[in-house]
Amino acid sequence: MKLYFENSYEALSQRAAALLLAAMARDRRVNIAITAGNSPRETYSIVTRHINAAPDNYRNVHYYNFDEVPIAGESKGYTLRELDQLYFQPAGIAESQIHPLTCENYTTQDQAIDDAGGLDFMLIGLGADGHFCGNMPYAVKFEEKIYRIPITREYSWYSSLTALCGNDPVPEWFVTMGAASLMKVRQLVMIVNGLNKAETVKHFFESPVDTAFPASILKLHPNFTVICDKEAVSRLSS
Amino acid sequence: MKLYFENSYEALSQRAAALLLAAMARDRRVNIAITAGNSPRETYSIVTRHINAAPDNYRNVHYYNFDEVPIAGESKGYTLRELDQLYFQPAGIAESQIHPLTCENYTTQDQAIDDAGGLDFMLIGLGADGHFCGNMPYAVKFEEKIYRIPITREYSWYSSLTALCGNDPVPEWFVTMGAASLMKVRQLVMIVNGLNKAETVKHFFESPVDTAFPASILKLHPNFTVICDKEAVSRLSS
Amino acid sequence: MKLYFENSYEALSQRAAALLLAAMARDRRVNIAITAGNSPRETYSIVTRHINAAPDNYRNVHYYNFDEVPIAGESKGYTLRELDQLYFQPAGIAESQIHPLTCENYTTQDQAIDDAGGLDFMLIGLGADGHFCGNMPYAVKFEEKIYRIPITREYSWYSSLTALCGNDPVPEWFVTMGAASLMKVRQLVMIVNGLNKAETVKHFFESPVDTAFPASILKLHPNFTVICDKEAVSRLSS
Amino acid sequence: MKLYFENSYEALSQRAAALLLAAMARDRRVNIAITAGNSPRETYSIVTRHINAAPDNYRNVHYYNFDEVPIAGESKGYTLRELDQLYFQPAGIAESQIHPLTCENYTTQDQAIDDAGGLDFMLIGLGADGHFCGNMPYAVKFEEKIYRIPITREYSWYSSLTALCGNDPVPEWFVTMGAASLMKVRQLVMIVNGLNKAETVKHFFESPVDTAFPASILKLHPNFTVICDKEAVSRLSS
Repeated sequence: MKLYFENSYEALSQRAAALLLAAMARDRRVNIAITAGNSPRETYSIVTRHINAAPDNYRNVHYYNFDEVPIAGESKGYTLRELDQLYFQPAGIAESQIHPLTCENYTTQDQAIDDAGGLDFMLIGLGADGHFCGNMPYAVKFEEKIYRIPITREYSWYSSLTALCGNDPVPEWFVTMGAASLMKVRQLVMIVNGLNKAETVKHFFESPVDTAFPASILKLHPNFTVICDKEAVSRLSS
Repeated sequence: MKLYFENSYEALSQRAAALLLAAMARDRRVNIAITAGNSPRETYSIVTRHINAAPDNYRNVHYYNFDEVPIAGESKGYTLRELDQLYFQPAGIAESQIHPLTCENYTTQDQAIDDAGGLDFMLIGLGADGHFCGNMPYAVKFEEKIYRIPITREYSWYSSLTALCGNDPVPEWFVTMGAASLMKVRQLVMIVNGLNKAETVKHFFESPVDTAFPASILKLHPNFTVICDKEAVSRLSS
Repeated sequence: MKLYFENSYEALSQRAAALLLAAMARDRRVNIAITAGNSPRETYSIVTRHINAAPDNYRNVHYYNFDEVPIAGESKGYTLRELDQLYFQPAGIAESQIHPLTCENYTTQDQAIDDAGGLDFMLIGLGADGHFCGNMPYAVKFEEKIYRIPITREYSWYSSLTALCGNDPVPEWFVTMGAASLMKVRQLVMIVNGLNKAETVKHFFESPVDTAFPASILKLHPNFTVICDKEAVSRLSS
Repeated sequence: MKLYFENSYEALSQRAAALLLAAMARDRRVNIAITAGNSPRETYSIVTRHINAAPDNYRNVHYYNFDEVPIAGESKGYTLRELDQLYFQPAGIAESQIHPLTCENYTTQDQAIDDAGGLDFMLIGLGADGHFCGNMPYAVKFEEKIYRIPITREYSWYSSLTALCGNDPVPEWFVTMGAASLMKVRQLVMIVNGLNKAETVKHFFESPVDTAFPASILKLHPNFTVICDKEAVSRLSS
């Protein structure tokens, strides 16, 4: 694990954007999975400026979402809808460069990624409850590649997921890449910022591998970089 | 995970030897960790024939043990002593190509391996109780790289370890590469043979990631090959 | 460069087959380019036996030809026709695993290979005149990826190419992967056998990079293995 | 080949620094070869700021020079002396992280690099006469790894090399990594700036592989990035 503790959210975003842009600097196809959420906003705005300044330099980059919560009657789920706003639209990414994971294709998407050369890079966040991608506490199955998870009341995260749906009906399932998919990603980068993640970050470093804190498994990844801002690491004893 | 179910122990050994020899076929340094035990006997005898026929072709190969149980008053522990007999002596491997992991250097050996370019290949067996390397049921810590484990009576494997020591005093600790070290190995190959492993193999494929069955974590490895003979897979439903 | 000098054509074929089979031992898609010609006959017959014994183990392997001489009015050229006989038919390879390079797709095939993750392995021979793939003396352009070469009388190899065509009309062009394509192949293996190649092998080792002896450029490949039988190296001073 | 045409020397330097810093973002040892000269000044000053802000993050980086002209009676030659000033001193790099290539160790340095896991990254410039590293027009031997070159009057570059020596005696030889060493580097980055390189850049893109323009061989590198400023590409037809 490579750690960067940055002085500010801005510095964190610069670091993450530089790694993303470096991963794109190939003359061959590059396959990248990116996260939705608030943490990557500034990272994406830096990357977007680069892409808009020289779009042809980035036609070789293909994008994948690593989880999805479906919206009834819509072809795009909550994740893809958010990625559209956050990244794909501002960066002008062509449809042909976007390869959605959905509840319909989740049993074949591992193979599709594999047939495209595998994922070169993945940017993820860290959930306050220790989840990564859609690998939720206690529901996570570490041995899985892409799998689906039932949305049931027994789980602590049930309410946050239903909140996401607002007035839409709550779907029965959602899908996510599992730890076995992530271990195959050539470079894994996690960004964590803000005081509200300070306790989570402390737990991340201290927890053994445990389904109660899914991100604990990521410590096994062979090429894993963690970028935190000062606030996120404020609970760590130096 | 790539699976080969072979018709015989001989076919299993041919397959494993071919993979080992192919890993050695580089013009640069190749770092390999190999297992002691009975399963690899025939594999090593095939590889040894190749090495003895053209020793200069294999001077680029460097060897590492992945666990060690120390012998009081001896520089070599039980694992290295056995590897000497099984492989290093018959294959005429020079001392300069052997890089022992010991209870003395276990805190620095991960770095030493890293400074030599990392492990390209590892050959392991599967313990009847689900252990791999020295990662024993319940004592295993998945998040560790090389670590040491106390030898205490609380564990089910205590007696098999003391049996190994015979009349020698039982050491306080032994050392092993952990799952976090193994995830960094570029190619991981596991061989399993014999009827007495049939139940274990079934458990290996069915078990979720669990410290009760340490080898369950290996299903996350990004480049993992499992070679079984017919007897070892006889309890699997096809 | 890694060199194996084998005692016999049989030993050369065993070595080459073992490397090919090891390259196939992944749980992901594997892309392989293979050569036509006489040298690989026995290699292919060993590999074919393995595939026929357990076809499901090899469904992940995709095949590419690296050059082609078109046949007027036929969809398959001379190379593919020969590979069909030598390998694809006896090994029962599905059409969906074969990705022909043709005079029609040669400007897009580099991209297609790239989009499938690149070539993992290539097996080539060495022409008596120093050519590799379709990179012929003096006509070779080292800086090219896949390119086409005019078939004109000015070249020494003109007659051997027209001989290949027999009574069919001689095509205007043929196509080949160039050195820039080969440098991207992760593992490059060349087999050379027989007394009639002894002078060529000597030249291969002694020649500087020179368009008069195209294979001279291969000495720059970052992961290159050369397997010769005893006869092929009989002109080398030890 | 991946091309970046940047609007300014500053933008070029930002791009090159970002790639260098990304290559360093590993938790394992990273081996980097860097160039002396004027072009990388601003790149190094950006990288140096990063290193000085968090030196512990960069202790895993090891440095190599790729050529050297010896100074009589001095342990460090012209290249290392310049790298000291440009980079090693301002960035506070420990001696233990610097691995000089010299006229004394040039026959063993390829092996030493190999034993340390190979070069992950190399930053080079482009000489106005088409040279790269110490591979000079007509004197270059494409098939070589590290080799030495006699300094004789027959070559056009003789005077620029003697100018470097000033009042010191002109050495008989200098040493350089050759194209066969560079092909093994996992990521090769070339920076070119300024109007005085415009003609050279044009030649670089147009020249076939030719000892008259040594950098022509670099077009074969499997992972090669070229970063130019606007002036350097001003002679290219778009």
